[in-house]
Amino acid sequence: MYDVGIIGGGVAGLSAGMYAGRMKLSAVILTELRGGTITTTNEIRNWPGISDIDGVGFAKKLEEHAKEYDVEIKDTSVSEIKKKDEGFEIITPSSSYEAKTLIIATGTDYRKLGIPGEKEYANRGVHYCALCDGAFYKDKTIAVVGGSDSAAKEALLLTQWAKKIYIIYRKEKIRAEPVNLEKVEKNDKIEVINNTNITEIKGTDEGVNKVVLDKEYNGSSELELDAVFVEIGRVPKSEIAKNLGVELNDKGEIKTDKGAKTNIEGIYAAGDVTDAEFKQAIISSAEGVLAAYSAYEYLEKKK
Amino acid sequence: MYDVGIIGGGVAGLSAGMYAGRMKLSAVILTELRGGTITTTNEIRNWPGISDIDGVGFAKKLEEHAKEYDVEIKDTSVSEIKKKDEGFEIITPSSSYEAKTLIIATGTDYRKLGIPGEKEYANRGVHYCALCDGAFYKDKTIAVVGGSDSAAKEALLLTQWAKKIYIIYRKEKIRAEPVNLEKVEKNDKIEVINNTNITEIKGTDEGVNKVVLDKEYNGSSELELDAVFVEIGRVPKSEIAKNLGVELNDKGEIKTDKGAKTNIEGIYAAGDVTDAEFKQAIISSAEGVLAAYSAYEYLEKKK
Repeated sequence: MYDVGIIGGGVAGLSAGMYAGRMKLSAVILTELRGGTITTTNEIRNWPGISDIDGVGFAKKLEEHAKEYDVEIKDTSVSEIKKKDEGFEIITPSSSYEAKTLIIATGTDYRKLGIPGEKEYANRGVHYCALCDGAFYKDKTIAVVGGSDSAAKEALLLTQWAKKIYIIYRKEKIRAEPVNLEKVEKNDKIEVINNTNITEIKGTDEGVNKVVLDKEYNGSSELELDAVFVEIGRVPKSEIAKNLGVELNDKGEIKTDKGAKTNIEGIYAAGDVTDAEFKQAIISSAEGVLAAYSAYEYLEKKK
Repeated sequence: MYDVGIIGGGVAGLSAGMYAGRMKLSAVILTELRGGTITTTNEIRNWPGISDIDGVGFAKKLEEHAKEYDVEIKDTSVSEIKKKDEGFEIITPSSSYEAKTLIIATGTDYRKLGIPGEKEYANRGVHYCALCDGAFYKDKTIAVVGGSDSAAKEALLLTQWAKKIYIIYRKEKIRAEPVNLEKVEKNDKIEVINNTNITEIKGTDEGVNKVVLDKEYNGSSELELDAVFVEIGRVPKSEIAKNLGVELNDKGEIKTDKGAKTNIEGIYAAGDVTDAEFKQAIISSAEGVLAAYSAYEYLEKKK
């Protein structure tokens, strides 16, 4: 039986594993993708202490760091977790593991448009995070897809770099907070296209160069641009936690306190699956570390 | 007038500065020591993504990273901060600065013994953090100075590496939590020496080799050992915050919520000066990032 079972091997899970190992807890990480979401980022420039690294290289560093402390990593999905008298049973498609404590670090999926070109041009003109990737589009033309307050804020953030930003929204009017809506309306760089969907993203070997709309705009059903930022929400992967009785907020995110504790003793959560307001790698990592520390404190008290 | 005035240039302050810059806020960091407390650490092995680096080298990386985003750094102490109608006036011994928001990242001082040898052998046998530096003393003999629950926990943690640990305490009996006290008593590696003070730390060019006691132990007033871990508490540097009306807990630490907000609008806090339970560089950095984000959100709303 492991001291800690870590579900998810992204930034949060790997950081939790590294610290668990440092505290001499036996830990297993079960992950579908070593490194998690950050491996889909071209260039990371906001990890304090590393001024420039690619997502895959960074994930590799985190993984190697965790392995220095004898953390086991298994490449598998998790089908179900059952509460036992002592600890938890983690069931995978081909095996099962027992652990005294759990750290849920399953992350989120960006909600996708599900249209042709989206997958093909991922990271080459199709992006999901303005703060992460906006700076690559200095003086370029960008479309932000979505109508939420987040979409408006992403568009406003992108005005720091881009020369022109279209907000493309399927409904009548974007639903941003008044203060943000006003800023969008006043900003000469931003143009809102309502009642419109993108049906296809097109490009060349250099990346995205246009999108196809389901309605003509300025006399054309094609719009030339350099990038599409999709901001239609996230999907926290919290189903497994929910089935264990872990409390979620109305977004489906796991509620945690400042010590990464959930409502259930022995279950901790870290990274983008939690209710942290600001989704950034450094925050996820710190939550992973806090979760490992809380697990350690819990196990020490039970000794 | 700066958007953000950051008081303290350690891990928290530099991380806050870097993110403030990324969010296009103008920021100034006022610091007595670039890099802060972490510059006193020999070897850092727990910064996710960097498996091994010295404290000074790491601090330099954080500083350079912050500077990439045009953050100004001033090498000065801060004498006083005054609330103005709009923002804050930060008064230094030779100048003054105005900022719309404040991030307090002043850190803590380890409480020192104040005895001969303590300063001379700092980081060469005199340490203040078992998790940071304990692993350097595999199969060695260590004294932990202090009688609190923290001292007991530090001693227990050190049993992972050291062959022998003395807990040296000035009073009758150590005041650890029952569970920890029992573990200390049952652990063959740990020996408690009560009613005793260390009056001097001695050594060679290789580092510490003995301490002088104010009372004979096993027939000698000298005790041979390889390291002294001082665990007599921390002193949060929260005086300036307190004078502004920022709420502190009973340890003198700044109370913050999950967004690094204090009780006063426009004032945020990050790093070891806050009431975070687990004092680690990665936590400080994440708090700095959260503080910068909260400042950004606050300034956006006021626009």
